[in-house]
Amino acid sequence: MTMPLTGITVLDFGQIYQGSYATLLMAKAGADVIKIEPPGGEPLRRRVAPGRKTTMPFAMLNANKRAVTLNLKTEKGKALLFEMVKRADVLLENFAPGAMDKLGVGWSVLHDINPRLIYCTASGYGISGPRSGDLAMDLVVQASSGLMSVTGEAGGPPMRAGVTVADFSGGIHAYGAIMTALFERERSGEGRLVETAMLEAMYFPLAGPIDSYTRRGTVPERSGNGGNGSIAPYGVFPVKDGYVAIHTGTDGHWLKLLDVMGRGEMKDDPGLATMHGRAQREQEVSDMVSAWTAGLTKAEAEAIARANKIPLSAVRDVAEVMMCEHMHGRGTLEWVDHPDLGRVVLPNSPLRLHGLETAPPVPSALVGAHNDEVYGGWLGLSAAELETLRAEKAI
Amino acid sequence: MTMPLTGITVLDFGQIYQGSYATLLMAKAGADVIKIEPPGGEPLRRRVAPGRKTTMPFAMLNANKRAVTLNLKTEKGKALLFEMVKRADVLLENFAPGAMDKLGVGWSVLHDINPRLIYCTASGYGISGPRSGDLAMDLVVQASSGLMSVTGEAGGPPMRAGVTVADFSGGIHAYGAIMTALFERERSGEGRLVETAMLEAMYFPLAGPIDSYTRRGTVPERSGNGGNGSIAPYGVFPVKDGYVAIHTGTDGHWLKLLDVMGRGEMKDDPGLATMHGRAQREQEVSDMVSAWTAGLTKAEAEAIARANKIPLSAVRDVAEVMMCEHMHGRGTLEWVDHPDLGRVVLPNSPLRLHGLETAPPVPSALVGAHNDEVYGGWLGLSAAELETLRAEKAI
Repeated sequence: MTMPLTGITVLDFGQIYQGSYATLLMAKAGADVIKIEPPGGEPLRRRVAPGRKTTMPFAMLNANKRAVTLNLKTEKGKALLFEMVKRADVLLENFAPGAMDKLGVGWSVLHDINPRLIYCTASGYGISGPRSGDLAMDLVVQASSGLMSVTGEAGGPPMRAGVTVADFSGGIHAYGAIMTALFERERSGEGRLVETAMLEAMYFPLAGPIDSYTRRGTVPERSGNGGNGSIAPYGVFPVKDGYVAIHTGTDGHWLKLLDVMGRGEMKDDPGLATMHGRAQREQEVSDMVSAWTAGLTKAEAEAIARANKIPLSAVRDVAEVMMCEHMHGRGTLEWVDHPDLGRVVLPNSPLRLHGLETAPPVPSALVGAHNDEVYGGWLGLSAAELETLRAEKAI
Repeated sequence: MTMPLTGITVLDFGQIYQGSYATLLMAKAGADVIKIEPPGGEPLRRRVAPGRKTTMPFAMLNANKRAVTLNLKTEKGKALLFEMVKRADVLLENFAPGAMDKLGVGWSVLHDINPRLIYCTASGYGISGPRSGDLAMDLVVQASSGLMSVTGEAGGPPMRAGVTVADFSGGIHAYGAIMTALFERERSGEGRLVETAMLEAMYFPLAGPIDSYTRRGTVPERSGNGGNGSIAPYGVFPVKDGYVAIHTGTDGHWLKLLDVMGRGEMKDDPGLATMHGRAQREQEVSDMVSAWTAGLTKAEAEAIARANKIPLSAVRDVAEVMMCEHMHGRGTLEWVDHPDLGRVVLPNSPLRLHGLETAPPVPSALVGAHNDEVYGGWLGLSAAELETLRAEKAI
């Protein structure tokens, strides 16, 4: 089986979502990812359901990784890290900026030990600048990035997106930065410090509100699901069993929508012939669409849209997405027998390289499950040495 | 100046946001990105403000690219593409799946011409499976991915995130997939078809709702900005001049918050000592925090949080983010003199490789601005041949 990152070794200090996503993608691409945790395990292991040792997010993000414990506050723990760094290609951490430096294991120390090491620090605000020390969680970056200011009902309070978009945007940007450095290393032979920040990874998605601001000279307000005076039909419409979202990006979509709604006569209304005209009459246009959708189910609306090339989808809930026939059919979602969680749906990598494989699912490991294999087998320590490390709480 | 992708040539059929983001990151990393548009220009050029030829999103996403026109519906246009493909490393397109095949210029044809070519197709749902033909815009994928189902007020309708998170998640995943293929090509010498889908790029951010669903057995509902019974204090709180978001991820954050609120006596309440306990009394805890924030400005609250390591940020609007001192100081945002737009704020790459440069800003080009340079200079066509191509509407 051929995978793109076979032979690449990753030391993964990722925790929670951001860092662990970047290294999960590397593991699924064939890298040997060694997840390094403090002896108690990383925070995402906590808050397990009664009778379990693993949470679903942990299982999603830490499949195909080996798990070791390491206490960086001990000298022997640091020495172990240095031994691993000599043999590794990539190290990733998403601690608060400076945390590794304070422990004496920051980039400059590790770079001296292995000049080919790529060291990725993925944080909320980056390692320089006035905000670098600010604590960042997904919700906080949704606020600082501007996302919340344009999310929510018109006239209502700022609203978060209900999924952790900032964490995962940070994570996939970290992956991209690491891959760029790995590619560059093929030419220069040099390792690098690479850096991503959640705040900066959330800037480009503001493109639409920035457009509006630049055009109108006023700061965009929240506008619910509406097209904000620039696009219609656009938004969320009720169906018998829930909601569908529709986004007519072109006049062609509008004309097709009129056909399926049985409102072909509206094609003769010159005021509705252009996007500008429809946006000026957004309420009227939305009411027309709602009247049509209200008579359909989600499945019926989707079938009509599919047959007529209209951009429409049901608003799917979490269970519907996890059971999505399309993603299961494509191998993006897989049923996996997890030793702790039982039979669960876990995602494969969303990066698809035809002609290459992704790693077949290996369930996430318990804390320190691979200590013997990694410290004994890989670093070559004896059973007695391992025992000492345990006794001294270095691992 | 050293950049990681110097020497890499990219044929960029990216349009709107998704595809163009992937290639913009390549351009900022030093690749020679040739943006190829139909003679009328790609859709993102449309809807310009009066007196302008460029929109801000276009300027953000197409800096540092050369712009040529190409009519793939002509035989001469196809022949030009084949000549470019012989010399290129990467081709990216985010048309509807199958569009390039229908024109006779799909992956298999181009792979035969240049077996080292990496061909990236970035779409809404991917190139296989029952949904592959569905039209996908950002809003539609926000619905199909589950994001909307958990965004919005409790009891209210599903709500979109006000920024185009699905488009840009697709784009950065495409970048990651391309870089993975470029790295792998260094070993195998082979080009690849690589594929990303917006839907699949939005799966992992569901980790939190998936956790909740697995734990409770009920599909997560919308819960506004609240911690949904599992975390408190968490949410958006009013200040004198707007709102701040606070996310206390640990007991330590809570204890610091009590100190700065002058509510140290609450440390003696055993019911509030754990996250579980605080989440059970979410309303009481949130009211306590609101009473404190209401007396502060955004700047005051941020200063206190920064000094005390509490995860908090003001809810910033678009103008505040564009003027962000932190990002300007780090060089992530730059003032650029754009020939059409004047002096504007444009983003640099959020991928930071220390010891390497990003390309200094070159403003986005007008439609076909580099036809002579690319078709004449690079492909070596004569002025007469260029004239013929123009006359025959092949470029």
